[in-house]
Amino acid sequence: MTKYVYDFTEGGREDADLLGGKGANLAEMTRLGLPVPPGFTITTEACKEFLRQGHVPDDLRVQVTMALRRLEDELGRRLGDVNDPLLVSVRSGARFSMPGMMETVLNVGLNDYSVAGLAKATGDERFAWDSYRRLISMFGRTVLHVEGGVFEEALEEAKATQGVTVDSELSTESLQELVERYKKIVLDHSGRGFPQDPREQLDLATVAVFSSWNTPRANLYRRRERIPHDLGTAVNIVTMVFGNLGKDSGTGVAFTRDPATGKVGSYGDYLVNAQGEDVVAGIRNTSTLAEMADIDPGAYDELQTIMRRLETHYRDLCDIEFTVERGRLWMLQTRIGKRTAAAAFRIATQLVDEHLITMDEALARVNGEQLTKLMFPQFDPRSPREDLTVGLAASPGAAVGRAVFDSATATEWVARGESVILIRRETNPDDLEGMIAADGILTSRGGKTSHAAVVARGMGTTCIVGAEALDVDPVARRARAGSLIVAEGDTLSLDGSTGQVFLGDVPVVPSPVVTYLEFGLTEALANADEETAELVMSVDRILRHADSVRNLRVRTNADTGPDASRARTLGAEGIGLCRTEHMFLGDRRMLIERLVLAESAEERDSVYEELLPLQRNDFVELLAAMDDLPVTIRLLDPPLHEFLPDRADLKVRVALAAERGTPNERDVALLAAVERLHEANPMLGLRGVRLGLVLPGLYALQVRAIAEAAARRATDGGTPRVEIMIPLIASVMELHLVRDEVGHIVDEVATAHGVSLTMPIGTMIELPRAALTARRIAEAADFFSFGTNDLTQTTWGFSRDDVEGAFFAQYLDKGVFTVSPFESLDIDGVGELIRIAAAKGRATRPELKLGVCGEHGGDPESIHFFHSVGIDYVSCSPFRVPIARLEAGRAAILSSLTGHQSTA
Amino acid sequence: MTKYVYDFTEGGREDADLLGGKGANLAEMTRLGLPVPPGFTITTEACKEFLRQGHVPDDLRVQVTMALRRLEDELGRRLGDVNDPLLVSVRSGARFSMPGMMETVLNVGLNDYSVAGLAKATGDERFAWDSYRRLISMFGRTVLHVEGGVFEEALEEAKATQGVTVDSELSTESLQELVERYKKIVLDHSGRGFPQDPREQLDLATVAVFSSWNTPRANLYRRRERIPHDLGTAVNIVTMVFGNLGKDSGTGVAFTRDPATGKVGSYGDYLVNAQGEDVVAGIRNTSTLAEMADIDPGAYDELQTIMRRLETHYRDLCDIEFTVERGRLWMLQTRIGKRTAAAAFRIATQLVDEHLITMDEALARVNGEQLTKLMFPQFDPRSPREDLTVGLAASPGAAVGRAVFDSATATEWVARGESVILIRRETNPDDLEGMIAADGILTSRGGKTSHAAVVARGMGTTCIVGAEALDVDPVARRARAGSLIVAEGDTLSLDGSTGQVFLGDVPVVPSPVVTYLEFGLTEALANADEETAELVMSVDRILRHADSVRNLRVRTNADTGPDASRARTLGAEGIGLCRTEHMFLGDRRMLIERLVLAESAEERDSVYEELLPLQRNDFVELLAAMDDLPVTIRLLDPPLHEFLPDRADLKVRVALAAERGTPNERDVALLAAVERLHEANPMLGLRGVRLGLVLPGLYALQVRAIAEAAARRATDGGTPRVEIMIPLIASVMELHLVRDEVGHIVDEVATAHGVSLTMPIGTMIELPRAALTARRIAEAADFFSFGTNDLTQTTWGFSRDDVEGAFFAQYLDKGVFTVSPFESLDIDGVGELIRIAAAKGRATRPELKLGVCGEHGGDPESIHFFHSVGIDYVSCSPFRVPIARLEAGRAAILSSLTGHQSTA
Repeated sequence: MTKYVYDFTEGGREDADLLGGKGANLAEMTRLGLPVPPGFTITTEACKEFLRQGHVPDDLRVQVTMALRRLEDELGRRLGDVNDPLLVSVRSGARFSMPGMMETVLNVGLNDYSVAGLAKATGDERFAWDSYRRLISMFGRTVLHVEGGVFEEALEEAKATQGVTVDSELSTESLQELVERYKKIVLDHSGRGFPQDPREQLDLATVAVFSSWNTPRANLYRRRERIPHDLGTAVNIVTMVFGNLGKDSGTGVAFTRDPATGKVGSYGDYLVNAQGEDVVAGIRNTSTLAEMADIDPGAYDELQTIMRRLETHYRDLCDIEFTVERGRLWMLQTRIGKRTAAAAFRIATQLVDEHLITMDEALARVNGEQLTKLMFPQFDPRSPREDLTVGLAASPGAAVGRAVFDSATATEWVARGESVILIRRETNPDDLEGMIAADGILTSRGGKTSHAAVVARGMGTTCIVGAEALDVDPVARRARAGSLIVAEGDTLSLDGSTGQVFLGDVPVVPSPVVTYLEFGLTEALANADEETAELVMSVDRILRHADSVRNLRVRTNADTGPDASRARTLGAEGIGLCRTEHMFLGDRRMLIERLVLAESAEERDSVYEELLPLQRNDFVELLAAMDDLPVTIRLLDPPLHEFLPDRADLKVRVALAAERGTPNERDVALLAAVERLHEANPMLGLRGVRLGLVLPGLYALQVRAIAEAAARRATDGGTPRVEIMIPLIASVMELHLVRDEVGHIVDEVATAHGVSLTMPIGTMIELPRAALTARRIAEAADFFSFGTNDLTQTTWGFSRDDVEGAFFAQYLDKGVFTVSPFESLDIDGVGELIRIAAAKGRATRPELKLGVCGEHGGDPESIHFFHSVGIDYVSCSPFRVPIARLEAGRAAILSSLTGHQSTA
Repeated sequence: MTKYVYDFTEGGREDADLLGGKGANLAEMTRLGLPVPPGFTITTEACKEFLRQGHVPDDLRVQVTMALRRLEDELGRRLGDVNDPLLVSVRSGARFSMPGMMETVLNVGLNDYSVAGLAKATGDERFAWDSYRRLISMFGRTVLHVEGGVFEEALEEAKATQGVTVDSELSTESLQELVERYKKIVLDHSGRGFPQDPREQLDLATVAVFSSWNTPRANLYRRRERIPHDLGTAVNIVTMVFGNLGKDSGTGVAFTRDPATGKVGSYGDYLVNAQGEDVVAGIRNTSTLAEMADIDPGAYDELQTIMRRLETHYRDLCDIEFTVERGRLWMLQTRIGKRTAAAAFRIATQLVDEHLITMDEALARVNGEQLTKLMFPQFDPRSPREDLTVGLAASPGAAVGRAVFDSATATEWVARGESVILIRRETNPDDLEGMIAADGILTSRGGKTSHAAVVARGMGTTCIVGAEALDVDPVARRARAGSLIVAEGDTLSLDGSTGQVFLGDVPVVPSPVVTYLEFGLTEALANADEETAELVMSVDRILRHADSVRNLRVRTNADTGPDASRARTLGAEGIGLCRTEHMFLGDRRMLIERLVLAESAEERDSVYEELLPLQRNDFVELLAAMDDLPVTIRLLDPPLHEFLPDRADLKVRVALAAERGTPNERDVALLAAVERLHEANPMLGLRGVRLGLVLPGLYALQVRAIAEAAARRATDGGTPRVEIMIPLIASVMELHLVRDEVGHIVDEVATAHGVSLTMPIGTMIELPRAALTARRIAEAADFFSFGTNDLTQTTWGFSRDDVEGAFFAQYLDKGVFTVSPFESLDIDGVGELIRIAAAKGRATRPELKLGVCGEHGGDPESIHFFHSVGIDYVSCSPFRVPIARLEAGRAAILSSLTGHQSTA
């Protein structure tokens, strides 16, 4: 016979799968000898059987009968007794708490007869009838699905009739009438009378809990949170204790430390003469826990002792619910408490110092998302603000500046010392200079991985995108949101963590954690108050511990010397991706135009000659900043037309010029070139290695510039460690061909400069075919670097720029994604390709170095996956380097703790 | 000790891996007792050892010595003998013949002394010196890598000095001088003297053959043909026989049947008093084999006997080389002969009728490529023609018609009875009507899988694309190629099998095979000559046999009733892909515009109301044509802007109208919609199921139209068997959502019409993620249909429309592809995903039906792969249905013949 019922004396916290979270913790507290009202738990197994069979398992009824008998014997009271009835609550309690499930029915066991018994036992007739009234409405709503509003209405009517405003002022008679009203409501709306048999009440409530597992809302929630559908929920039957039996009674919630700041010392709310639901309803103001010491010092002291006990036992911040019944304390629930980012860090190191946990555990208790939150400045929460509009929070931070509507103005105003917010409908590489100059970026179109969002995150610039209510008019240099107008020069404040846009100047509080990361502990502690100092030291200790335990190296994506230097300060151990295309913007764009228009090898070569010293200097600067650390340089990747004017705009210009009789020859030639290079799907076109193989000399130029830069660094006493990376490889043949073409250039340059240069040549794995044929590709690659952005695009068949606006929001709503696969790696699809590629690549070349250089390299959840498949390093934008270091450490810890799952 | 040397008496044709093709067949003929000059073969194993170690294996020398001794003993002659020397040829012979490898050195064994012995033994001093001269030049060229031209020069000088024009007129003295000259050339150019030691000659020639395995040309060839690099080549040492010892000597090549037509009876060329190289050099006109009967009746009769023997033994057409030395016949080589498509079919059934092979074998001996060739009409080869230009042969056939430059003119002229050739720079869906009307399509841009090419192949219309020399001016309605101009109305002839474009009317010969396929055997035989009749009957027998043995069903891609009917005639067993987007072109395009511009649900619904009866009729027609066969209808797939005007053109139109002060409100509204729907990469954008989920009501409309059409057919006594297919699924959630939305519509319609409707809902597998997560997707799919076009695009990361022009040609040149992966499935990459998806899908649902509806469904090589992974059916354009039937049969036969590989 399967055991479906466990007394609270029979289990413990290790039984959460079987007893649910609430049941397991009630059992644990019982085991600790804490004052838990007696009761028992019906297991998740019983629920699963119910879901399978459509009815409760046969054995359950008899097991519940036996458990009830034990309870009645222990307490000396009986369910439904007309003198001193036993009352119980029926509470759901799954492994994970989730919305949409039936919560609680209190006061089960009351009926037309036992209500008198309760009055007699408590000496409080009004209380007894009020309890009965509450049972009928709760039971009606949650078990019989009567619409809650009708009970509310009846209650309001009763109050109006009696001329009172608060429930507690209703007289006993009035409550008795209300009970009759409620019973009629139940009958009318559910078609059945309120069950007078207490056992039937209990059984129906149990079935209602089981059934609520499958409500649409619960199903949707599980689907989104990837909680398995077959876990089932447990049901807890708990002896009722009452916090509403007078001034010596009360109810409260408490935390063993302050969950907002992490400050040591208990923290909570207490409400005299009240039941739990009254606290939630917020009818009266609660007292603080400190005030409870005056109200009920005995219960307070006992509570403090229990809380210390719990914290020592659970070795973490605990969140508890309790009731005081006529001076006696009862523990109704405990669980590990939620906390803010700052609290998480502080509590973790506090517990280490209290010898409750190890540094490994402290590291496991915080996460990258929390660190991210700590890294961004925020608006002072006490300052007033005027809303303009709201968009998608694309890159966090708090930015204040004057509105500008084009890149040139942004650069110009910043040059004269202004802070600016760049407002565009959407951005493109032409806006880059302005984006770099701006303190904040605001667009009316695009999703969280639009150009603006990606670039801003890469630079750590505050950014809000897709503020669709904003009508941006770049020609008139203004934007409108409803009746509000922002003109050029108006001051705006962007909250990149919430997506809110405010008119005017909202004061900003800087992040001490960033000060620490960029300038060190001393600098950060210089003017810090005590709490801030503790936080910063906590971050420092945990981050250094993460560095000491992690296997994953952390590099950065950086294209310039300054970016590289900053990333190095933040802990980057090299560059995983230098995108050379950013070196062809600005003035150099003209060179690409000339390259495209070139009609002979000579013309092309003359462009290359001009490019060579420019490119060489780019690389010298980069290698100097990352001296003695690996620097992976990707050869040119994007299609050439990205450097040319927009086709439609150019076509309009040419047509208008013709119409006006003022044709421009260069525009006509350029249009011809643009038309020639036009691609319906540039993402799938002539780019990456294809361009390198088809356009003679381009890759050779880049490799020569890289090799000469390395030679110069070596000559100057530096230690350049360059790795050359070929983008968009689909077939090993492409890689062979590039190696054939450029392989000897490095040797040639080394000989000419009299230095020794070793430059591994590796490949991006960013196309499904590269992953699938990795066994072959590894024959010609010294390393693999997973370009997870492009790999996501081709695996899913959607382009980052196009689809987010179009349908991502709906897909998130419908539960196809829980998070954009551009933000957090799609482990089932894209991850499967990475697994395949890693295994196949290493089958050919066991020592093959594997890196990740897509956006996901800085995403906490993705980092755990990369660790699990044996990736050697991740590469992310400079500001995500500390987060990656932290999560890489956590991944190492969590994967070594058997049975522990990543909580990232 | 490894045996590296096999006497011809020791092996057979089964040893081709070890002895190479030539060696194995020489051994086989020896085993048959045919007159093969004695000799032996050095194995491919010896070559492999040589390639591994860098020198010949130690044992080889002694084994060759022993084999030579046996040879000398058998013949009573010795290598280098000054009286009657043994001479041998050294010939390479790999498993597969390949270019770039060293071919043959004849007369090995001659030196300054044995040349006299040869003169003595043959009684022909001039012959001896000529043989010596030939040895030195051949040896110098192929073994010592002396540039061949220098020997030629010396020979020309000698002829000039002696005042003769032909080699054979050179005197003995002159040849003796030439030998000295040649020896000096060898010394000067190679740095070593011509080796006088016959054994050294032989050993060096052997090493030269081994080394030639790794020439760049051979490497490139193997890479392209996917021949493993480690097979190695064998070396054959064959006693010399001479066809140039007088009028009773000669040499020839022959086929056991006519390889051009398949006609029964031997066929070949004979050259009196000549060696093999003379036949190749074409110095004198050869005689036919029939004429040989008069020249040397004895040898001729013996040859005929041997050829019959060989054909019976090899059970196939044999291709042989032979020499007659002073009346005695020697067989120098045999192999299975190449043949034309018509010959392949005729010979296959002839051999069945001669009881040499079974029908299974006959089926294995022909292939789909041959059948394709037989299905297209061709230009009469005897007619004169004037070249205009040449492009890529995109869709075979021979088309003659008058040039038109736009779709409307094409339709109009065809309506009045003209045949037209539609000439465009490139085509798009707007050109469809004209493309359907035209007899041939010619574009100056685009590759073999451009829109024009794909649509043309689908319709079986002759098409040439990418004729880049052609400058098309659609406005002036003319095209220019160099100095030649084609004006509207000029007659052109397109050869879709070669890509040639001719000016004027070239007479066309229709295909009797198509007449048979479309109208049956009786019709095809009505006016056929004997050869044609035999061919048609052969095709009929083999195709019917293929149908009886194949496991793969063959469906067709068809969107209209007439297409479906035609495909059914050609043997289609259902529709695997009906693309509903083709039903929204033409007049209905306006409805899509209205849908896009709709601002309310009501406006959208009114569009749907108009669409419903139109769509329903489309489907009724289709289901009637395919009654009682499965019809898979794909819901709308392409992005909506494909139905709207081009963005750049519209932008120009609006700008010009504004400039002229004549703005058009509808254009402005349309431009706004086009801008809103604009996507940088539409292939990766809002299309397929994404559109279905995001645009309310669209899929519901289509499903309703399908269900109502099926209900109507059922009511009318038909047997509709509809399958609904959802495009572009990446996640099982998408499929669940569609099923949730449209699932009940079928039931609703069935109830309303009082019929029973069963409509499986399945999915395209056309994104890597769908393949990788097929285990989950199979939970919600009644069938999978692989969309191999899109799967190829996303797996490789290139779009069909864009990349072919841009770099495919170079990629083919460079050997990255051997064939476009859009033509023949990329088995290593895309195929791997199909394997994964098939396995995972069937793990969830073992009875899951798997189909293929991409272009590859009609490609021979791909079909064998589909068979091998357990696909249930392929679907292809109507005209490829017979080819798919044939190849599906071959796949069944070939995969069941152990050790036989597909020769598709």
